[in-house]
Amino acid sequence: MKREAELQGLRDEVSRVTKEIISLIAERNDVARKIGHIKTEGSLPIEDEGVEDTLLKEVLADCERAGVDREVGNKIFNILVSESKRIQGQNTIQPVLVTPMTIASKAMELQRKGKRLVRLDIGEPNFEPPRAVLEACSKALFDLRTRYSETRGIPELIEGLIRHLKKRHGYDAKARETIVTPGGRYAVYTALASILKEGDRCIVIEPNWPAYKEGIQFIGARPTTIHTTLEEGWEPHVETVKESIRSNTKAIVLSYPVNPTGKIIDPRVFSDLVALANDYGLTVISDEIYTDYAYKSCASILESKANRFILTSSFSKTWAMTGFRVGYAVSSEDVISKMMKMQSLMITCVPEFVQFGALKAIESEAEIRRNSQAMKERIEAASKELDKIGGLEYYKPDGAMYVFPRAKRAGFDSSTFAMKLLEEKNVTLAPGSGFGDYNNCFRISLGQSKETIIEGIRAIGELIS
Amino acid sequence: MKREAELQGLRDEVSRVTKEIISLIAERNDVARKIGHIKTEGSLPIEDEGVEDTLLKEVLADCERAGVDREVGNKIFNILVSESKRIQGQNTIQPVLVTPMTIASKAMELQRKGKRLVRLDIGEPNFEPPRAVLEACSKALFDLRTRYSETRGIPELIEGLIRHLKKRHGYDAKARETIVTPGGRYAVYTALASILKEGDRCIVIEPNWPAYKEGIQFIGARPTTIHTTLEEGWEPHVETVKESIRSNTKAIVLSYPVNPTGKIIDPRVFSDLVALANDYGLTVISDEIYTDYAYKSCASILESKANRFILTSSFSKTWAMTGFRVGYAVSSEDVISKMMKMQSLMITCVPEFVQFGALKAIESEAEIRRNSQAMKERIEAASKELDKIGGLEYYKPDGAMYVFPRAKRAGFDSSTFAMKLLEEKNVTLAPGSGFGDYNNCFRISLGQSKETIIEGIRAIGELIS
Repeated sequence: MKREAELQGLRDEVSRVTKEIISLIAERNDVARKIGHIKTEGSLPIEDEGVEDTLLKEVLADCERAGVDREVGNKIFNILVSESKRIQGQNTIQPVLVTPMTIASKAMELQRKGKRLVRLDIGEPNFEPPRAVLEACSKALFDLRTRYSETRGIPELIEGLIRHLKKRHGYDAKARETIVTPGGRYAVYTALASILKEGDRCIVIEPNWPAYKEGIQFIGARPTTIHTTLEEGWEPHVETVKESIRSNTKAIVLSYPVNPTGKIIDPRVFSDLVALANDYGLTVISDEIYTDYAYKSCASILESKANRFILTSSFSKTWAMTGFRVGYAVSSEDVISKMMKMQSLMITCVPEFVQFGALKAIESEAEIRRNSQAMKERIEAASKELDKIGGLEYYKPDGAMYVFPRAKRAGFDSSTFAMKLLEEKNVTLAPGSGFGDYNNCFRISLGQSKETIIEGIRAIGELIS
Repeated sequence: MKREAELQGLRDEVSRVTKEIISLIAERNDVARKIGHIKTEGSLPIEDEGVEDTLLKEVLADCERAGVDREVGNKIFNILVSESKRIQGQNTIQPVLVTPMTIASKAMELQRKGKRLVRLDIGEPNFEPPRAVLEACSKALFDLRTRYSETRGIPELIEGLIRHLKKRHGYDAKARETIVTPGGRYAVYTALASILKEGDRCIVIEPNWPAYKEGIQFIGARPTTIHTTLEEGWEPHVETVKESIRSNTKAIVLSYPVNPTGKIIDPRVFSDLVALANDYGLTVISDEIYTDYAYKSCASILESKANRFILTSSFSKTWAMTGFRVGYAVSSEDVISKMMKMQSLMITCVPEFVQFGALKAIESEAEIRRNSQAMKERIEAASKELDKIGGLEYYKPDGAMYVFPRAKRAGFDSSTFAMKLLEEKNVTLAPGSGFGDYNNCFRISLGQSKETIIEGIRAIGELIS
């Protein structure tokens, strides 16, 4: 009886404290509203990372003193900050943009109606997958390799990857540090999800493939974007990256050659960024999907001094196997086992017969050379054609399979331009806004034949002038 | 200047309020610690759903009054409750169980060493996929259907599914209400993730496939499990389900015939549960993957009066296509578009050539009948064999591809038994603890031939007595 009364008393206390917390949140929201008014009047930005990070540091120190779990403090802080931002920004109207998906949907709609289009929007090489891949995949099908298989990937492919990485980078991966994923995208998503918790931050150098930022946001974490410029050859400043690190920054994404610019970072800058990551205990997520389309020396995380890293890659671009949906990742055993847990929960495994195809791809070295050479020629051809257009400037790609020109004209809107190009010239491209704050740029994919690329760029030139 | 001073004042206030919140959390933790001591002394359970839900209702009402977003209140409450539980339970030791994965890993290890095992642990039919599926898949490969395709699924397969569901259930699904997924597992995961937010609750009737609970927990939501018993033929009480609904309950999973019991719910109970879901605005997630292995009338959500539902299914079991990783879901346009967004972010698309195989499966009706008949015979054979074992009792499956017997002996531990069975008899099964609080039960898969099943059950009988 006494125990029950005591329990009831304590429960009343829990209830009182909980309600006080809610009323403090309400109070915080009122203050946020006032701040919002002042910021609107003064046209000040809603986000102020410096102020926010100072407070977060204090909060985490308070947590330590009061014996509150750091993770809990971080989570609560994140909810409070998001709520404040929502309140401060709730009257600002977001502009509706023409996204790359808008262009792609419109294009597919027109194609279904029989319209011939020059599709320079999709990041997909038009090469054929190696014949040996098709044959191995088909053979495995008829051999009934059609059952559940290992979540990590079949041992044959894991061993194949280990051999491949040893040969390519001199790196000794262990089987338990390796995973086969349903596409590079899934490798990137599970890599991010294995490192980032809600409220954490991850650095992304822009312009870049939007999937990094989207993945970070889907997890409830927050991207810190580093802006680079055409003037500086899309090279990031290590100092700027350093200044952007906050107490809850956990990772940085590197992805050279970059989609959309084709930039390959200076190897010294790469190793400076790795050293910076080591200093701050960050994990480097290095997406090396375009590594076989690199036309100057391109550093790999596997040859770096990174303490914590995740390599992600895929069979999609090198061997034109986009539709096979097979990629891979290499990291520490601990990280890979977290990624495997997610893969086991959501996917079970990558189809075994697809993996037998992928195994043959690794051995298809002639195709690597052929595709790489063809892409180099396309970069040359596209550059020569772009040079004829007075209204554009661009960085000549060091690799990957895109060019990312910028319009010289002030006020150029790449979304409007992309839509007009589709409607008037039957050519598609991806507006720059999809890759960061680059609405005066657009991405031309070099996935099509040289002739098609030249045809498309000429049409762009006509519309620009 | 004045504006800046004012802003600084407000920021100081934000900082003060934030720190007060942290110190209240510390206070709440202290109280939780005291409650934990009392509960430990009195051997009381840590979780008390009633108390918790009453407080949550009050908190949400407070939020409404104070103008705090309901979602924010819910999230904060969830963090506080988890933290309290962690503190209260932090000295209790969790027993280490032999999981189904432990058995499977051990079994694979032995098989690699050349040991012949009778594998009754894996939920995978040993039938061959229809020849037409293999041929269509292989043809699509050589036709170079190896590129990116629609995230939703290729139009041919979407239309095939629509025809299939119309014929089977008289249901008119629209293309935008349908999605092809990389396996039924991914359909289940994205279904859960499209409905549940962190802290929400979802009802699962046990015993059941562990992936529902794991998916709910991965999202940060909380499963409410309904315990059913062999005595009552694994039939759930609608009243019990009703009483378990909390203010943050958003969905209920139904999955008939059930893995592992083979139970098919009474169609009236099914429609009562649907009516209950309608009354409380819950989404019914109906996983109908075993629908072609049903040997008495089995209600489908597509023929029900559910207001909000998600049907999930797969090609894995009916056509023995486990390793193809292809499933599907049907729901409202709104839910499917959320699921598609996740699929687009993580997966891009299901391999196109795999989808051409799946399209042929739908047309392989002879194989449906053949596999269904074979599974029925296996259930009969397994039941006949189990009847000979005095130490076991079981519910004769109405469908699916498993039997879930219970040991009569008090203190029977299915994990120990499974390990002993593997070591002494070279037979594997899945311990009951994997499917809920059923450590005195175990699951026998009927994925193997009749002869193998009989051989395995005889070995079980020998070890039981």
